[in-house]
Parts: sequence; structure tokens; C-alpha cells
Amino acid sequence: MSIPITAKNVSLSKGPDPKTSIQTERVAQKINPQAMQYFLEGSKQRAELIQTLIQQMERDPILRVDGSHYDMSKEQLREVTAKRIDRLARYIEGDSLDQFERRMSLLGAFEPGVGTRLMVNLILFCKCIKGNGTDEQVKYWTVDKHTNHVRGIFGCFGMTELAHGSNVAGLETTATFDKANDEFVINTPHVGATKWWIGGAAHSATHCTVYARLIVDGKDYGVKTFIVPLRDSNHDLMPGVTVGDIGAKMGRDGIDNGWIQFSSVRIPRFFMLQKFCKVSREGEVVLPPLEQLSYSALLGGRVMMVLDSYRMLARVSTIALRYAIGRRQFKGDNVDPDDEEALETQLLDYPLHQQRLFPYLAAAYVISAGALKVERTIEETLDVLDKAVASNDQKGIFKSIEGMKSLFVDSGSLKSTATWLAAEGIDQCRQACGGHGYSAYNGFGRAYNDWVVQCTWEGDNNVLAMNTSKTLIKHILALEDKGKAVKGSLHFLNQLKEYTGSGASKVVLDNAKDITDLSKFIKALEVAIIRLSYETAKIVRKEKFDFVGAELVNLSKLKAHHYVLGEYIKRVDSHDDESLKPYLYDLGRVYAATIVLEKFSGIFLTFNVASTSAITDLAKIAIPQLCKKIRPNVVGLTDSFQMSDMMINAAIGNYDGDIYENYFDLVKRLNPPAKDKAPYSAALEAMLNRPTIDERERFEKTIETGEILSK
Amino acid sequence: MSIPITAKNVSLSKGPDPKTSIQTERVAQKINPQAMQYFLEGSKQRAELIQTLIQQMERDPILRVDGSHYDMSKEQLREVTAKRIDRLARYIEGDSLDQFERRMSLLGAFEPGVGTRLMVNLILFCKCIKGNGTDEQVKYWTVDKHTNHVRGIFGCFGMTELAHGSNVAGLETTATFDKANDEFVINTPHVGATKWWIGGAAHSATHCTVYARLIVDGKDYGVKTFIVPLRDSNHDLMPGVTVGDIGAKMGRDGIDNGWIQFSSVRIPRFFMLQKFCKVSREGEVVLPPLEQLSYSALLGGRVMMVLDSYRMLARVSTIALRYAIGRRQFKGDNVDPDDEEALETQLLDYPLHQQRLFPYLAAAYVISAGALKVERTIEETLDVLDKAVASNDQKGIFKSIEGMKSLFVDSGSLKSTATWLAAEGIDQCRQACGGHGYSAYNGFGRAYNDWVVQCTWEGDNNVLAMNTSKTLIKHILALEDKGKAVKGSLHFLNQLKEYTGSGASKVVLDNAKDITDLSKFIKALEVAIIRLSYETAKIVRKEKFDFVGAELVNLSKLKAHHYVLGEYIKRVDSHDDESLKPYLYDLGRVYAATIVLEKFSGIFLTFNVASTSAITDLAKIAIPQLCKKIRPNVVGLTDSFQMSDMMINAAIGNYDGDIYENYFDLVKRLNPPAKDKAPYSAALEAMLNRPTIDERERFEKTIETGEILSK
Repeated sequence: MSIPITAKNVSLSKGPDPKTSIQTERVAQKINPQAMQYFLEGSKQRAELIQTLIQQMERDPILRVDGSHYDMSKEQLREVTAKRIDRLARYIEGDSLDQFERRMSLLGAFEPGVGTRLMVNLILFCKCIKGNGTDEQVKYWTVDKHTNHVRGIFGCFGMTELAHGSNVAGLETTATFDKANDEFVINTPHVGATKWWIGGAAHSATHCTVYARLIVDGKDYGVKTFIVPLRDSNHDLMPGVTVGDIGAKMGRDGIDNGWIQFSSVRIPRFFMLQKFCKVSREGEVVLPPLEQLSYSALLGGRVMMVLDSYRMLARVSTIALRYAIGRRQFKGDNVDPDDEEALETQLLDYPLHQQRLFPYLAAAYVISAGALKVERTIEETLDVLDKAVASNDQKGIFKSIEGMKSLFVDSGSLKSTATWLAAEGIDQCRQACGGHGYSAYNGFGRAYNDWVVQCTWEGDNNVLAMNTSKTLIKHILALEDKGKAVKGSLHFLNQLKEYTGSGASKVVLDNAKDITDLSKFIKALEVAIIRLSYETAKIVRKEKFDFVGAELVNLSKLKAHHYVLGEYIKRVDSHDDESLKPYLYDLGRVYAATIVLEKFSGIFLTFNVASTSAITDLAKIAIPQLCKKIRPNVVGLTDSFQMSDMMINAAIGNYDGDIYENYFDLVKRLNPPAKDKAPYSAALEAMLNRPTIDERERFEKTIETGEILSK
Repeated sequence: MSIPITAKNVSLSKGPDPKTSIQTERVAQKINPQAMQYFLEGSKQRAELIQTLIQQMERDPILRVDGSHYDMSKEQLREVTAKRIDRLARYIEGDSLDQFERRMSLLGAFEPGVGTRLMVNLILFCKCIKGNGTDEQVKYWTVDKHTNHVRGIFGCFGMTELAHGSNVAGLETTATFDKANDEFVINTPHVGATKWWIGGAAHSATHCTVYARLIVDGKDYGVKTFIVPLRDSNHDLMPGVTVGDIGAKMGRDGIDNGWIQFSSVRIPRFFMLQKFCKVSREGEVVLPPLEQLSYSALLGGRVMMVLDSYRMLARVSTIALRYAIGRRQFKGDNVDPDDEEALETQLLDYPLHQQRLFPYLAAAYVISAGALKVERTIEETLDVLDKAVASNDQKGIFKSIEGMKSLFVDSGSLKSTATWLAAEGIDQCRQACGGHGYSAYNGFGRAYNDWVVQCTWEGDNNVLAMNTSKTLIKHILALEDKGKAVKGSLHFLNQLKEYTGSGASKVVLDNAKDITDLSKFIKALEVAIIRLSYETAKIVRKEKFDFVGAELVNLSKLKAHHYVLGEYIKRVDSHDDESLKPYLYDLGRVYAATIVLEKFSGIFLTFNVASTSAITDLAKIAIPQLCKKIRPNVVGLTDSFQMSDMMINAAIGNYDGDIYENYFDLVKRLNPPAKDKAPYSAALEAMLNRPTIDERERFEKTIETGEILSK
């Protein structure tokens, strides 16, 4: 490398030293990242399990990812994904259930393509059977056939069709009972009913849990689930099964999503999953107590997506914050303008930059708590349901159905709010890294492309959000009309009278102090939800639900924020490591101030939940003060996620903070500069060295020719 | 295809018929799309030119794009991009300036990779020379050497470095004058000063306009521009020039962005661009009157991005709206629940869906007007500047510098606001298409990935927005402190006293009627800007500018909305086709209500620009009523963009509206179902058919072995 030409006034001839910035800050910060990770992951034991699993996968040469991942074409991704699944299968054969679930969740963070392609089999296919099949069916299809070890059978989940997604009850594939042969005939009646988006169908899957309309004696009993073999043990397609690859997607190209058409495919009657719904040899139909039970396979996925949102926010905020510590640009107001030798300002010392990034750092912390809580709840609920079904305890079944309903509500609002927030976080963190955020090697592009489908699949976010809030509005109507008190997590709605009518002008947040008082903030959220749902309920009485879709979506978001922030505060309150609490409460306050209050200031103001002076204080006092408190410990707060450089997989986001050298090295390794001509360089050169237009036109249009031809 | 199994209760066994929906609506709508396009493109003549150019490119087998574009790897994109540039060069040789500029703008809409790779040469490289070189230099480098015909020279634009982007004045590449040899020595002092992101550098470019610090006799004169040859006529790299490919990006992979390091590369003194800044044979330096003049090359790009935003919003809203007309899901409140035969509800008949999409449809219309205006303004300003420079009219030069400064402000706020809005529009339109929005073949993924760099390059949006608003705040301070009146487009700031102090509580928007009164709305925007900048100025007096970054960004957005909405209303007012006006005003109202008021309701409420009853009316009355008025003419309003199916390049967005068949056909064409096994299928099969774990472990861990080995 050449020696810098020194010149008296060139204060910038010394190269940047981002490494020292991060190291200095790391030494100065006050948090114990290890202890903090115990908080984030729920317990010391679980945090350690996670580290063990990551180490295992990171050292495995087939499973580990690096920057070259971002250079792969769809075809390469497909193949490497299959290889990784093969390799993972060997680990899974030895995993306990807990290890397996952790492993899947971690995979979702660093190799979502592999995670999903495997999960359609191990989670969606198997859970669909578990949710809808008898114990014997579950044992046969998932254990005896080794599906749970990715051996013998590879399942896929045949719900969505080309013309039907969210409206599962409207699916059009048919399963017609043929009494004479004791078989079901599975059929795709028209192009709209083609199974579509089916992960694993294009090339991997041998079997499919098909959602199809049960038709017996000409009567349509609605959508039920059936196991339909797609490929034989030689991996050849079964007769009547037409399968295709749906091709390139915005992201997750490692997954072989496919379409399936069934042309009168026959399966034995006992291939129908019949835990709740049964068809007898004679064609008598017993229907399930709650149709939604057959979609319970999706519940686990929704819960997992909340956890995914935590990890994704942790990952992208770590990248952007490490970059913002190393990167300097302009001499900001914190630099003495007369000091010519002063370094430029670190991006993270600009208040705007803090305000752009800290919300997502805080969101990672807050959402981790909500994810842990809802995860525990679903485990408990399904457990109780299983026991009730096993002992044929009808009362127990109905009780757990109540629990399931409330889980549908909670998970719907959490899944939608958290996945939207993570998508926004990826995008904002990328923008905060300027041009370098646009390089594939810094991870954001792939992260975003892989991520955003989470806002659509397993329940479109808007549809989920509206359904969640419809329940809320119904509570309000029942409370108003029948005085029916609300139980469970929504019991705060019972304060309806206190905060509407003559109480509608009662302000909860009046100044910066109120905003940062977390228990007051939770109260404010409750009042906002009460007043918005009260007003929305009034409209619904006249206009029906479709009219208030936008309000319903807002309500669902507020409800989710109330849930996660509430759970977060509870977890912090009861945490055993006092030293961490001040930092944790501040992060909760950042979340409250930015992710909630700033975004919903219109609603908080309209419904008198916050005063205009509170909102003025928010921008002028509360947010700047909170940012100031967070700033010194950013390195600690991000290190606490304990994400290895492999998990981060972004050259500018590595632990050592040597942003430029790491990035430049990776670029050179993957694109050797010795190749200074493109493979198609001859074409470029021919273009540049082409003859003049007159020559190429054989001088047919020149003035001279004109004279000849005009004579 | 199999005959549908008919069953009495299966009301859905008939296939979907989206084509009829769109055709019926097309017949019923009241707008003349042709006439509307004249409005959108500025004139009949220009609209016709555009159609001519599109037809030309669409029929050219090399230039036309289709769904296969979305299947291309980076390597394929790079090569096909080079081929298309070669082909385009032949058209450009015959283009008038107007044709050329239209062609570039259209390319940006359907093949942005080609557009950009060509524009770094024809726009950035050439305009940098035009902006900084003498007439003779311009003639030599752009005309005589045939650069403007993409022949002989292919230029690139060497501004950004690895460690410096937005802070152009802080670039660290040096150009040291060697008096003895009458040469400049171009040098990269350290890795941070490596030129980075340089479009075309990796493989195409032969020359580069290098932004480097001029150093004469040890003194640093700041950043100036120099022509540095990179490759000789044999396309081999010059000595001292190291170039590399920066590799994969989030999007625009057709562009060969590269990095460049200069190791004491010598160029003749006359390779310095010296329109404003000169170095004599003896090393005397004459500096330019305004440093920003040397960045004027970026101005044209910013203006073009506003036009790009219009086209992108037009494209994605067309796709999403056509899909929403064809797609039906659930039976909504508009369907009689007792009518079993009723079709499901069109997505676009859900009020929420209208509220999600109409804002971006309206934004396309409104931004088209702003884009046309700012485009005209830059042409006029640069023309006046050129004439003043040519006649060495110092007073004229300084006057046009004033115009340039105001253009920097206007274009900065417009570029940032419009490109952000388009990014958001792409994302929202994708989400509105559910799962199918995630397919690569429906265009959104590539559109987003290619687009979002517009928010970062040629001026990071946040930096641009802050700079814009600093000017605004300075006006307020000068007005308050010195009573200095504001001229030009910001003259409304002079009403400062009327709307602050004792006038601070004066409400402009009080109800739904006020919201939809466009002139009142413009007034409201002015008052919001006045009050927010007044409060921000107060803080700036104490805390300096960095502290109010977030407020500055909001101000810039409000200012841009004021500009485009104002220009839009003016254009509609003065338009000669009266029949279009009612629709156009309604679109303006939608923009005002959603893109402005809904998003900034916190600010409008905090500063008493709108009352809480106005904001309640907004959601309850104004937006629903406007949506209701727009709904019947959506087909006409989107057809008016006159985007051919090639420009749309999305299977679910075609003109005929046959969403399912078009999409399915494309998927099958690009992924023939006959290939039902993956190329790597053997690996999958081996995984599924692998022996049991006991066999693979050679029975070494079995109970039997345990008994043997434990003896």
C-alpha cells in the first residue's frame, strides 16, 4: 500500500480506526452481557443450551453460513439447503424436544430458508397430524414412519390454494367419500383450487396434509384434513398428482415451494385425520366441536414468529449499532469547530441516529419477554387440551377450547405486530447504514427479503389483526349491552365506564415524567384501547365490521404493545439480578415512548389519553433524555444478545467492529480483484470500439450519398 | 382437466373469473385514460413520445423484459445488462435530447439496472464534466470522444469512498500538483479512501471523474474533480489503478459497481475540470464561487428520482389494484349472508383495502405534477447559469447560484420524501397482494430491492431532509431577529407572527369539510410548517441543529408535501380538460387526507392545526367518503398510466386482469412441471432412504452391545 502523501492541511490523511471506538466503548460499558442474556433467553440454563447449539452448528462445515451465502443463486440455495437439512437430520435424531425447538428457532435466525423447508415437515406437517389425528395416527405417521427424524417421509402442508389463502373455510379442493370402495377421492376442481405456495412440494415432499372439503353423499361438511401421498418410495410422483415448482420468490429461495393439482387421487378412508371429525364406514359424519381446532397447527408457528421477531430485531440492531459506533461522518455539534485535528462525529452521537435505532434495540428486549410468555401459554394450553382429549373429558375439552380461542386472539395480534415491527426494524437499520446497508454482504437485503413473508403467511397480518380486535369490540358490546364482565388478559376493559362518557376527557399522560412512568404508561395504553374500541364499537353498531378495518388494525397493535410491555415489566420486576434493572426499565421506557406513543400520538391525542404538552415533551425531553441514558451502554446491550459473528453474518456488524477492513476483505475474497475483466468483456469492448454510425450504415445516409441519390 | 365433482352444497365449485370483474368495471368507468395520460405526462405531445419510445423498446427483442428477468442470477443480469446497453447505444445515437431523457426515465421504470449502469456514464459522468468543465473540456470528453453515444469512452462517477459518503467535503483521495512535471498525482492514502460503490467501475468504465482533494504546495484546497483514465483502449487497467467488483447487492445486480484504489496515478494538469476552479502552470489556484457548484451533477439525478417515484407508484398501485379487483376473499359485509350463491367479496370492496391502496394511487398522480415542475425549474436554472458563465456575467452567475441553492433545498426535500413514499408504496402494495405479492414473478420483490437504494444514494434521505429544513429554520431565525422577509416558494413563512404567539391556538382544520377543502388544506400545511419550524427554531437557539434532527426530517416532509400538492392543484386548476377535474381533485384530497394528515396527525394536533374533531372526522367521514368516490373509477385511473404489460411485468397485474391463469401460465413456462425431480434429487432420496441410526452407528450403542461392553 502506498505511503500517504502528507500535507499540512490534510487533517484526514490518517485512516479511520473504527475498531478502537468499539473497543473503548466496550471497556467502558457497565452491563454484564452474560447475565443480561440469561434475562433475554428466560434462564441461565436456556441461554447455555442456546450457546451449545450455536457452537455445534457453527463448527459444522455444512451447517455454518458466511458471506458467500449472499452470492448464491436460487439453484445453489436450493441444493445447499437440501444438504443442510440432511445434515441437521442427524442432529435432530438425538435432540430432546426442547433442544429441537431451540435449534429450529436459531436456524430461523441465521438460515431461515433451511429452517422453513425443514419446518414445513417437522412443524406444520407433524403438528397438523398431531392437532387433527388420533394418537394412533400421530404415532403411525410421525414416529413409526420416522418423519420426526426426517427419514422415510418428508411431509408438506397443503392448505393454501391459488385463489384462497386467508379464507381457509373457502378452500375448494374436494375430498369426496366413495362408500363403495371405502376411499376418499381427492380432487382439484379448477385452476383456482390448485394448492399453491406449498413449501417442500416441488421436490422434497413425499406426503401432504391436504385441507379439502369433506363431501359425503353430496353434502359438503367443510374443510377437513387428509394425508395424501405425493411421491412413492422411489420419489416418483403418484398417479393423479401433478406437481410444479412455483419458482423464484422475493426471498427464501432455498425452499422448494410448489403447486399441486390432484386429479381424482384415491386414498383409504383411514388417511383422514380423525381426532375431532370422523367418517364411518357407512358415511356417517361426526363433526368437531370447534372448526378452528383443525387450524391449531398454525398456532405454534405464530408463536414462533414472535420469537423470530425478537432474534431478528436483535440481529439487525446489533449490526446497525456497531456500524454507527465505528462510522464517523461530518463534524457534528459535539465537535469543537476550531479543532482541526478533531475526528468526525460517530454516527451514534447524532441524536437523530439514536432516535432511529434505539427503538429497535428496545423492541428486541421487550418482545423477547412477550415471546417467552406466549410460548409458555401455548405449551400449557395444548397440554391441557391433549390430556382432556386423551381422557375424553368433554368439559375439559371445552375449557381448553376457550383457552385456544384466547390464544388465537393473543397470538394473532402478537404475530402481526411483532413481524411488522421486525420488518420495519430491518429496513430502518439498513437505511441507518447508508450505502453499505445496501451491500448484500451486510445482510440486510437478504434479511428483509427472507423476513417479510412472515407478515403474510400463516395468517395475513391485517386479517389476523382485524380478527383479534373483533373479539375486543364484541367484549365492549357485551359489556355495554349486557354488563358482561371481561375476564383474562383483557379484564381492563371493564373500566369502560370510568374512561368514556363523562370520563372521556380524563388525561393519563400529561408530561415527560408521566411518559417515563411505566405503570402509568400501561394505564395509558389501556385507556387508549378502551376509548378507541368504545368509539369503534359505536360505529360497528351502524356500519358493521368491514367499515372499521383501519381502527381494528390499530387496536390490535395497541393490544399487542400492551401485552408485551406488560409482560416485560413483570419479568423485569421479578428478575433476580438487580444490577440489570435500571437498564431494562430504560429500554422499556424507550419502547413506550417511541414504538408506542410517538407512532400513535394521533390516537393518544384524539382520545385525550395524552395532552399536547405530553406530546411536545415527548420529542423535546423524554426521548432525548432516554437516548442519552442508553447511549453509553449500547455495546453492552447489543453484546448481550450473544450473537456470534456467524449469526450476525454481516461484514460491518462483526464483534471486533473493524467495519472497513472486514468488509473490504470479504468483498475481495468473494470477488477477487485479479478478475478485472468481465466474462463478457469482449461484448463491452466491441461496443466501445465499434465503427462510427456512418461506417456501420455503409455511408448510405451521408450528405455525399444524398447528393447522388437526389439527382 | 377433470370435471368438477358437483355437490349440492358446494357453492364454490365454479372456478374464479377475475377477468370478468375487471372488464365489467372497465366498461363502467367514466374516465378517458388517454386524456388523463396527457395530464399525467404534462402534454399530449410528451405522452405520445413516451408511447412511441415504449413501443420501440418493447418490440426490440434485446431490450424487452418479461418474467424470465426475475429468474436471472447476478451473473446473467450483468451480461444481459451489458447487451442491452450496447443495443440502447444504437437508439441513443439517433435520439434528440428530449427523446434521450424520456428514454432514460422509462428505462428506470422497467429495467432500472440498465438505466443506472448507463446513467452513471451518460448522466453522472457527463453531467459532472458539464457542471465542472470548460466548454472545450465538455466538448472534448463528451462529444469528440463519443462518450454521449456510448462509444470510445465509458465513464464512471468517482465520488463516494469506503469511509465517506454524505460528507463529500471530507473525501480523502488526493490530487497533488507536481509542478515539475505539470501533472496531478492521484492517490488513495488508505483503505477508507478507496472509491466505493462506483457504478460501472468493476468492468465497464474506461474513465472516471474523480473527486479528490486538490493539494498544491502542501496546501489542501478541498475537493475538486479530475478525469482519470482507468482502462486503455484495449480495456486493460492503467498502471497504478486497482479495481475490484464490490459484488452482490440488495438489488440492481445488473450494475457492475466497483471499488478503485489509485496508487500515485499521474494525469496531465489539463485533466482537471476547470470551469470554476483553476490551477495554473505555476500552481496558482483560483477557487469557485460556490463549492456546491461541483456537486451540481447530482441535482439532475435527484430531480429524475422524483419522476421515478411517480412511475414506480403508478406501476405498483396498478398491480395491486388490478389484483384487488380480480381477487375475492371471504364474504364481506357487502354480501347478503343468506345468499349461498353469492360470490366472495372483491378485495377492493373492503374499506380497509381501499384505505391501504388509494393513498399510493393518489400519490402517483400528485407526485407527477411535482416532478414535472421541478424538472422544468432545473432546466431553466441550469440554462441561465450556463449562459451567465459563457458571457462571464458575474452578477448573472451569482444570481443563478441563488437559484441553484434554492434548487438544492427543493430537490433535497422532494427527492427524500418522494423516494421514501415510493418505497413504502411498493411494500404496502406487495402486502396487499398477500402471498402472491411475495412471488418474484409479480414484480414487487425486485421492485423493492432495486428501488430502496434511491433513499440512500445521491444524498442520503435523512441528510438531505435535514439540510433542507436547516434553511427553513434559518429563514425563521432571520425573520424573527432581523425581520428579514422570505422570498420564493417559502414566502408563506412571513405569516409567522399571525400563527404563533397569540395566534398559536388558531385552528385551520376543524371538520371533514375543512379536510377536503384543498385550499384550506394547503393553508393548514403552511401553518403546520410555520409552527413546527417556529418551535424547532426555539430549540435550535439553545441546543443547536443536531438536537432537532427528527423535527427537521418531519419539516422537510411537510415542505415537500406542500410543494407537490400545491403544484398539483395549480396544474389541475389550469388544465384544459374539464371532464377530468372532479377525479383529479378527489385524488388530491385523498393525498391530503392520508399521506399528509393521517400520518402527521400528531403534529397537526399538537400544534392546533387540526382539531381533535377534525381527526375523528378524518377516519370516520373524510377518508371513507373519498374512498367511496374513487372506487368506481379505479380501473380508469390505473389504465390512465398507460403502462403496457411489459412495463408492469407482473403476472397478476396484466391489463386483462386474468390474474390466476396469467400467473399460473408464467410459473409453468419458467418452471416446467415435467421436471418433477430436483437436479440434486439423489441427495434428498438418499437422506429419506438412509438406514436406521443403529445401523449407521454399526450397532455400537445398542442395548446388546452395552451388555457386551459392560461385562
